Amino acid sequence: MQLESFEIVRVLLLSAFAFVFAFLWAPMLIVWLNKFKMGKSIRAVSDAPIFAKLHAKKQGTPTMGGILIWVTVFVMAIVLNKIAPLFPADSMLSKLNFLSRSETLLPLGALVASAIVGFIDDYFNVKGIGPKGGGLRMRHRLAIYTFIAIIGAWWFRVKLDWDLLHVPFIGDFNIGIWYVPFFIFVIVATAFSVNEADGLDGLAGGTLLTSFASFAIISFAQGRYDLAVFCGVILGALLAFLWFNINPASFFMGDTGAMSLGVTLGIVAMLTNSALLLPIIGFVFVMESASVLSQIVSKRVFKRKLFKSAPFHHHLEAIGWPEPQIVMRLWVVSMVFASIGVSLALLDALM
Amino acid sequence: MQLESFEIVRVLLLSAFAFVFAFLWAPMLIVWLNKFKMGKSIRAVSDAPIFAKLHAKKQGTPTMGGILIWVTVFVMAIVLNKIAPLFPADSMLSKLNFLSRSETLLPLGALVASAIVGFIDDYFNVKGIGPKGGGLRMRHRLAIYTFIAIIGAWWFRVKLDWDLLHVPFIGDFNIGIWYVPFFIFVIVATAFSVNEADGLDGLAGGTLLTSFASFAIISFAQGRYDLAVFCGVILGALLAFLWFNINPASFFMGDTGAMSLGVTLGIVAMLTNSALLLPIIGFVFVMESASVLSQIVSKRVFKRKLFKSAPFHHHLEAIGWPEPQIVMRLWVVSMVFASIGVSLALLDALM
Repeated sequence: MQLESFEIVRVLLLSAFAFVFAFLWAPMLIVWLNKFKMGKSIRAVSDAPIFAKLHAKKQGTPTMGGILIWVTVFVMAIVLNKIAPLFPADSMLSKLNFLSRSETLLPLGALVASAIVGFIDDYFNVKGIGPKGGGLRMRHRLAIYTFIAIIGAWWFRVKLDWDLLHVPFIGDFNIGIWYVPFFIFVIVATAFSVNEADGLDGLAGGTLLTSFASFAIISFAQGRYDLAVFCGVILGALLAFLWFNINPASFFMGDTGAMSLGVTLGIVAMLTNSALLLPIIGFVFVMESASVLSQIVSKRVFKRKLFKSAPFHHHLEAIGWPEPQIVMRLWVVSMVFASIGVSLALLDALM
Repeated sequence: MQLESFEIVRVLLLSAFAFVFAFLWAPMLIVWLNKFKMGKSIRAVSDAPIFAKLHAKKQGTPTMGGILIWVTVFVMAIVLNKIAPLFPADSMLSKLNFLSRSETLLPLGALVASAIVGFIDDYFNVKGIGPKGGGLRMRHRLAIYTFIAIIGAWWFRVKLDWDLLHVPFIGDFNIGIWYVPFFIFVIVATAFSVNEADGLDGLAGGTLLTSFASFAIISFAQGRYDLAVFCGVILGALLAFLWFNINPASFFMGDTGAMSLGVTLGIVAMLTNSALLLPIIGFVFVMESASVLSQIVSKRVFKRKLFKSAPFHHHLEAIGWPEPQIVMRLWVVSMVFASIGVSLALLDALM
């Protein structure tokens, strides 16, 4: 069997395993989240009147469902990594290990680190700890995720010796020290944008699915097979998550899922040197955060709202689209844009 | 530019074009269908009591939305074919033609022929023509689609000289004259199964999307680029269709969409010699028709119903799942099975 064909087996086998594994322990997680009363506090009426009315029925659904995804990925990565040395280097079981210093150690570390921060934030939100009882302050969250991004940027520069920015169809540019702020911006912006999409049942899950599928293909085409496996394992776990997260959801993703997968998505884009395609592949995320930012600017500067409610999916709810219609249509949008993004990446690589 | 990379451009460019084209004329189609009162007759209460109650709200939504898909594909195929000879053979515009005798002429012909039969059937249903006012009799429909399948089988045997059945991981078998009944069974079974799935908003569309995406990949991997383009164009049109078909739907697919795309799916599976993978790739369709058949057998033989309502998606409705939840979960199921099917096909090709 050739190398490529073995790598395809590896990606597909481990993705399928992640799906089955996540699907099997999801019911336990749901019982546990309900038992510990991890129901999300829905934003107060005074704070966001339209939003509160539309989402009253969601009060009590547990958050932190994202645990399903990152724990599945983390456990699989560690177990396969620990099993590998016990077998001969050319055996199948040894080759299933997908944790490698050059490809997956950084995204896995960032996934888990930001998932833990997100978990704490979710916990504070549920238990009403923090200012206004809504978890960490915005500036604290920003500081923490920026810190995680700085570690990532340092790893890129120092451990992976990387300072080239790839511009599709044009070439690689050495942007020197500017690589660091660029890196931080990509990671933090992606994380917060994905988090904005985590507002309707299945929305963040479905759009993350198309994004990670895109990067699984891109990584594979670049020969970064460990990274392709990593994306595949996330995909498997995400599909299982989606099953339970579809309206009416058994749990929400929460910061522990959305922030961690957002950080990871940004890092995977940097590792495949395709950060400039990320706004296309993750178009829905861009749309979501652009709507939030322009709403804030419009409120401050023009003293009027641009959207009935932000992010954009709440605007669509406010003008009367039923929740599942919004989610399914945004899935269609994300499929279209993911196809465009992958096309551009493949074309760029082939030309 | 290498051959493969040019072919990727061709598939992606034409798929994207099909999406935009279909998306733009869909609103006109909706206006037209409403103007001519193409509202679907929902099955009578006496005939299917649970079904009738659940679907009363759908009365009046026009059917025949499938026109969007096959007309888009047909117009693009013909226009590009007619344009091609006007330009030098090595020019881009000439190479966009994807109508070829060995690959796409048969599926396109079958698509259009069965779409026209489906259109007539839909029209009879809407206008209350035929026995019980429900369109053609089942045995007439069966006869017509079997006739279309026979023409296809003849084309395969005589024009394409084909009588090998490929069994994944084992090899090719010359099944001689048995190829004909096998061919007919695949086409007719696929068509009726897809049609069973056309019962909830977005269900047939979403599951056809994963099926045709699978065969786009399989065709491409086999170097059947015209067929890959053909699947890609169907995908583009399907995505546009889905946008308007998502609950609450602006139109339904109708027989003109479901039967024609089912016939085409079967033929594409035969053309890629992967008919034995079709039950995996189209698992949801198999589930749907298996539930209908076992319901009939159970009613006749054991005098009791196996499901509260058949096909299976109506059973899920009857036990209380909301419509969008059923659709989205069956999308997840079809994504999982399509991934497995494509994996097996790629593995089989690589080993």
